[in-house]
Amino acid sequence: MHTVEAMLETYPKDLGDLDRGKLTACIQACYECSQTCTACADACLSEDMVADLVKCIRTNLDCADICATTGAVLSRHTGYDANVARAVLEACAQACKACAEECERHASMHEHCRVCAESCRRCEQACRDLLASLG
Amino acid sequence: MHTVEAMLETYPKDLGDLDRGKLTACIQACYECSQTCTACADACLSEDMVADLVKCIRTNLDCADICATTGAVLSRHTGYDANVARAVLEACAQACKACAEECERHASMHEHCRVCAESCRRCEQACRDLLASLG
Amino acid sequence: MHTVEAMLETYPKDLGDLDRGKLTACIQACYECSQTCTACADACLSEDMVADLVKCIRTNLDCADICATTGAVLSRHTGYDANVARAVLEACAQACKACAEECERHASMHEHCRVCAESCRRCEQACRDLLASLG
Amino acid sequence: MHTVEAMLETYPKDLGDLDRGKLTACIQACYECSQTCTACADACLSEDMVADLVKCIRTNLDCADICATTGAVLSRHTGYDANVARAVLEACAQACKACAEECERHASMHEHCRVCAESCRRCEQACRDLLASLG
Repeated sequence: MHTVEAMLETYPKDLGDLDRGKLTACIQACYECSQTCTACADACLSEDMVADLVKCIRTNLDCADICATTGAVLSRHTGYDANVARAVLEACAQACKACAEECERHASMHEHCRVCAESCRRCEQACRDLLASLG
Repeated sequence: MHTVEAMLETYPKDLGDLDRGKLTACIQACYECSQTCTACADACLSEDMVADLVKCIRTNLDCADICATTGAVLSRHTGYDANVARAVLEACAQACKACAEECERHASMHEHCRVCAESCRRCEQACRDLLASLG
Repeated sequence: MHTVEAMLETYPKDLGDLDRGKLTACIQACYECSQTCTACADACLSEDMVADLVKCIRTNLDCADICATTGAVLSRHTGYDANVARAVLEACAQACKACAEECERHASMHEHCRVCAESCRRCEQACRDLLASLG
Repeated sequence: MHTVEAMLETYPKDLGDLDRGKLTACIQACYECSQTCTACADACLSEDMVADLVKCIRTNLDCADICATTGAVLSRHTGYDANVARAVLEACAQACKACAEECERHASMHEHCRVCAESCRRCEQACRDLLASLG
């Protein structure tokens, strides 16, 4: 999503000392992970062994919701509140970690869980990198 | 929303030692606050003095998103992950506090900000009550 | 959610010839149905016979998302666009109808599907009533 | 988001006669447009002339919500319901059209509106292309 960068560049006011590279990467990772988790929940649902994947589906659904909200919060810069940004990033990193761990348990058997686990790990890392840069 | 309680009562498995009263109250407060904040952002947008309300609108939009996600996460009980639940409740309490404080600054002038501030305070408290009960 | 009405009453500009009663009822039904469908998807997931409920879960997830978006769109009055409102209400009525029909097939066996089917039917009707009043 | 394609490829069941290229393009366009509209609403909010942009902000918020929901619905294939898919795609094309037209009015003055209008037009077209392929 090259538009994430384009929207940051056209924001009319000063973005302060935010690390633009880390912010761009984190917004992109959040939207990607939200889609991947939505699709992985659905793929798990269509597996014959769905009964063994119910925890994975639930973790996917939580992660999809939390990533979507985090991506939206990070896309706003007007009236920035560091405490809210930090708390949302912490929740997102936690949800991505939980979903990655669950998907990794099924990654050798289900390719969609492998792709999803990687997407969750990228998003978890992007959230932690951005958190660290916020000081 | 009496259906929140009905859905908890018809959940087919054991809910563990969750405090049902506090959980019900928190889910209801999250959905209510998400709607109130969405409506308050829109009401602020229609005020002649919208330029003075941009921080309020932004805080409303964040709070609406975070409350909606928190309400959804709390509505799921299968494969419960206490770390994710706690992190999301912390983020929600933080967003509600920030939005309440901002709306309270305009509450004497704008009735929608007064109603919204009260909804945010109720949701902040419901999140903190549920967090405390999670131990 | 009595706050839905309070927020309509405190909207600072003229709401035009919108039927306030039907609008209030529809916003409330959308938020309620979004929560009920989220909870029903999760309850289905915890049933031993989850393999027989995968279509129900998917329909619940779609309905939850569409109702949440419809509730948010209807909570905004500034810069109202009748074509967007109508198209969203049509989609919501369609999703609620599909979810009600699916849940009704399991309502005699699963109480959560019975509660959810009723919530979907209320929301479908509220959308159709509001659509009819839009002319 | 190359993961959209990867998740389609790893879906365990038959996708039927869906046009995978058009489906992939539409899912990607929906997530991109949702982010772009969220960012454009925020950029408009930070403009000194925000009072002239209130309709644009509102249209952005609706479009962001509707695109996010459409992207999620299209990411699910289990228990597919063509009527729901069609109604959601119609609503999304309508919201994207309305938002593109509004942003285009400000595109020569605000670069964020120009980027956003292009994103909305791409998403509108992707929805119409997918709708046409559904027959």
